[in-house]
Amino acid sequence: MDEVSHIVVDWGTSSFRLWALDLGGAVRAERRSAQGLAASGAEGFERVLEAHLDALGIAEGVPVMMCGMVGSRAGWVEAAYVATPAGLDGLTEKAAHVPSARRLIRILPGIAQRGAAGADVMRGEETQLLPLIRDGFEGVACLPGTHSKWVQVEGGAVAGFATFLTGELFHLLRTASVVAPAVEGAAAVDPASADFARGVEDGLAAPELLGRDLFRLRAGWLLDGMSPDATLARLSGLLIGVELAGAARVAGTGPVALIASGAAAALYRTAMTRAGFAAVTLHDAEDCVRAGLHAVALKAFRLERITA
Amino acid sequence: MDEVSHIVVDWGTSSFRLWALDLGGAVRAERRSAQGLAASGAEGFERVLEAHLDALGIAEGVPVMMCGMVGSRAGWVEAAYVATPAGLDGLTEKAAHVPSARRLIRILPGIAQRGAAGADVMRGEETQLLPLIRDGFEGVACLPGTHSKWVQVEGGAVAGFATFLTGELFHLLRTASVVAPAVEGAAAVDPASADFARGVEDGLAAPELLGRDLFRLRAGWLLDGMSPDATLARLSGLLIGVELAGAARVAGTGPVALIASGAAAALYRTAMTRAGFAAVTLHDAEDCVRAGLHAVALKAFRLERITA
Repeated sequence: MDEVSHIVVDWGTSSFRLWALDLGGAVRAERRSAQGLAASGAEGFERVLEAHLDALGIAEGVPVMMCGMVGSRAGWVEAAYVATPAGLDGLTEKAAHVPSARRLIRILPGIAQRGAAGADVMRGEETQLLPLIRDGFEGVACLPGTHSKWVQVEGGAVAGFATFLTGELFHLLRTASVVAPAVEGAAAVDPASADFARGVEDGLAAPELLGRDLFRLRAGWLLDGMSPDATLARLSGLLIGVELAGAARVAGTGPVALIASGAAAALYRTAMTRAGFAAVTLHDAEDCVRAGLHAVALKAFRLERITA
Repeated sequence: MDEVSHIVVDWGTSSFRLWALDLGGAVRAERRSAQGLAASGAEGFERVLEAHLDALGIAEGVPVMMCGMVGSRAGWVEAAYVATPAGLDGLTEKAAHVPSARRLIRILPGIAQRGAAGADVMRGEETQLLPLIRDGFEGVACLPGTHSKWVQVEGGAVAGFATFLTGELFHLLRTASVVAPAVEGAAAVDPASADFARGVEDGLAAPELLGRDLFRLRAGWLLDGMSPDATLARLSGLLIGVELAGAARVAGTGPVALIASGAAAALYRTAMTRAGFAAVTLHDAEDCVRAGLHAVALKAFRLERITA
């Protein structure tokens, strides 16, 4: 691992992703696990991290830049929220220092919004936005997930944002509600399916009927034998449709940078097109978080200066 | 218990309520328990029922009329749904016969809506509507609860209805979501509180922002230390506000018969006034279900004829 100059880690509530990077940001090695916050807290954060580094043969002294819930109050060291507007420099300066005898370790702070725009917080998503900000992006970005973020980027900073509970509602309804038996054993939602499209249309057209449309999913299963696949696709479409109706209200339907990976990327892209968003540019969320961590690592650890 | 002519029972998913009535419908004795469907299914429905009757000294031969989830597929004997439009006679005729060596036992069917109006089902609420129907009620009735029902009554029958998942969403969000820690230990929601009013207003004004407003409850707790009481009141108001926005869309904002008991009655009444419903007439849900069961018992068991 001679060419590894630094390590970057995205450490969330339920997952751990680590990349060993060279000075140019290219991936030299990586590690992934399901060691989220609860599991890692019990085992010890430093022990978890160093075990991964050992497995890759990373030497002492190689610095580590992290982001995500590892910087929350329930994480390793709390990295207090930075207030909006927040840009690359502010986040880098406010990175929390993690005590370690073996290396420099920093955790990026999240961003908090207060005041008239309404209380809101993000932790992890700000890092995904950094490569876009570095490249001069201005406008609206959407980062779908358990807690979808809609972010206004202005003047090289996160000016404001709104979080939607969409992914969490989907999970709760799918696993713990009266809709759950109607979607048992369903396959992953097909973004091209008519049922997903129908759900999106319903959510967009009448978001105030969400509660009714959710119960209809159960009734359709009871009375008409609607299939689990179709029901799950409608559920997903419905919730995304309502989110897009809300996002259109607060952020308009202009061009959107969609920062997502895997299934969410295709679902949101399809739904956004249907909702009339002007243009959707897709950025891979994992590439973005790695590039964001790389950018702050270069700054924070003065890596370019050292090697210049 | 000489004057007891018949027994009526509302047997739901999580509760059992039994009244011993005389011919005029007056209550001579009652029993209540938390023996819902799952518990009763395990013990045996007949055993549970007869134990309550024994405790009251009810003789063999006294007939029993029941409604609620006890007539579902997971209940004692399935009472298949009657299709809309459904009135008192149709429900009485289709009551399921429960085999018993000791007495006549019937379970009222629920009502199913199919076709263009959208799949929907009710089981139990139809019985609460019967006294209003008997008294010539026409128009819109609202029966709030885990699954709130908005019912159109026309020509002495349930013409159509829409179910909203409001109460279940409240429960899921309160107990199992990221909002849960923010409402831990909260007191019962005060219908007169400014926070409940604010939630209702937000839900009515922008139902498409429900997902965002739900996340704000968490953020307000994290950043501003919003109290559990205030947060729970907003959560309740928000969900009821969105339901009322949806109900207004499908049923208008004309006069509403509100069939409810306890906390839900005050919360919905307050929220409906705020939402601009023309006139709200409150009927006690428990009185209604008992009166409805009494009316069908008289018909089904021909009690008046026997004693005439």
